[in-house]
Amino acid sequence: MHILLTNDDGVDAPGLLALAQAMRRLADVTVLAPDHNWSASGHVKTLHRPLRVRATALADGSPAMTTDGAPSDCVALAILGLVERPIDMVISGINPHANVGHDVTYSGTVTAAMEAAISGLPAMAVSLDSAEVPSSAEAYRTAAEIARLLAERVLRHRLPPAVLLNINVPLRTRDELRGIALTRQGLRVYRDALVRREDPRGRPYYWIGGEAPTGILDQGTDLWALSEGWVSVTPLQLDLTAYPALDSLSALTLPI
Amino acid sequence: MHILLTNDDGVDAPGLLALAQAMRRLADVTVLAPDHNWSASGHVKTLHRPLRVRATALADGSPAMTTDGAPSDCVALAILGLVERPIDMVISGINPHANVGHDVTYSGTVTAAMEAAISGLPAMAVSLDSAEVPSSAEAYRTAAEIARLLAERVLRHRLPPAVLLNINVPLRTRDELRGIALTRQGLRVYRDALVRREDPRGRPYYWIGGEAPTGILDQGTDLWALSEGWVSVTPLQLDLTAYPALDSLSALTLPI
Repeated sequence: MHILLTNDDGVDAPGLLALAQAMRRLADVTVLAPDHNWSASGHVKTLHRPLRVRATALADGSPAMTTDGAPSDCVALAILGLVERPIDMVISGINPHANVGHDVTYSGTVTAAMEAAISGLPAMAVSLDSAEVPSSAEAYRTAAEIARLLAERVLRHRLPPAVLLNINVPLRTRDELRGIALTRQGLRVYRDALVRREDPRGRPYYWIGGEAPTGILDQGTDLWALSEGWVSVTPLQLDLTAYPALDSLSALTLPI
Repeated sequence: MHILLTNDDGVDAPGLLALAQAMRRLADVTVLAPDHNWSASGHVKTLHRPLRVRATALADGSPAMTTDGAPSDCVALAILGLVERPIDMVISGINPHANVGHDVTYSGTVTAAMEAAISGLPAMAVSLDSAEVPSSAEAYRTAAEIARLLAERVLRHRLPPAVLLNINVPLRTRDELRGIALTRQGLRVYRDALVRREDPRGRPYYWIGGEAPTGILDQGTDLWALSEGWVSVTPLQLDLTAYPALDSLSALTLPI
């Protein structure tokens, strides 16, 4: 069994280290991760410039590779042949913050798993629901163990085609977790605000700032599960068609 | 009526010019588009650096704004207050190539419309199914007229909440179009390949290359509609939950 690991925080992130250490007890592991942070970078396919890849090591001395490409590029590079051994599964993470609600379309962690699913591989994105960015791998241990357990179950039971798992783990000890809940994507409430500043030459520039997003805690959603102490597992599909809307939109097809 | 236009090819792209000229006959138009090409850039929210905005003009002399942010940043900047007048609709395009199948998760054109839908605004992404990149606005005229007609219908009939339209127009004259078809997202077959090269110092670098993607032409899909000469209108939803998969995944929730 051979698992590819990547993330969007960069190869030195402690969440990746904890994930690698947990997964090595389940399978052979190859790590290929970006050389810098790609948070909120979305689903990228770098076609306009070549990508560099170099050997490096995680903080525990284990071998890894890193590239100047995006998280989804890491998956594409590995699957397209940079990694010679066939890959059985792709896991992305562990992100220090939850990826819930509409976050999933921005998230480099989730879109790396999407890239794997597009290629037909089982894929999981794993995130820790932490307000701060934990600086040591220790804080990610429980989430990493949960990810290993879910990876085992996925390899045993398989996933439906074109479906990936978006996993979010509360920042709790294993004893404090209530269990694993299958959830649906919830609704984030973004509280972004535009901050206008002027540079020393009097020219304006703008930050997309504001407060951290909140969420609507409807029962059964990813946001609700985390707030109640459950590990949230949301199956995501690559088909974004709004099937329920098709009937209501027939007026759009009037003759032109 | 006030429509915001953006794209992912940059403010100077002829597809944006054609779109602006068509939409100005329907509503007041504000153009805010990236200052360079962001193709295959995905859904970006630029939080780690400030964004510059400057006034410019389209090739017909009409006013526009441009920024060093991504297409989705353009939408966020405008909605968050850079554009003072309330926005009734957001249209992104016209992209010179089709955005069909799994393209929609990579596409800057589509994710700009997603950003608008997240903020609750009616939104459309418009793409021309051209193999080459047409260099004049003329090639985009028919697609722009179809976009105007669909924008009128959307403003009259509204869209369901959290749904955006992904519109693809064949490269044909209006007389040659068969009509407008409501479609579902089809299946792209990517034929990416890894190309390994060495720089003058003997160090390897990699291109994600290969041939253009093909598609599976199942009836009712975006790919099928284009191949048959129909304008393809696919409603996309922001909720990626794989509802049909939920039942089959209950084994994942066994006690931990």
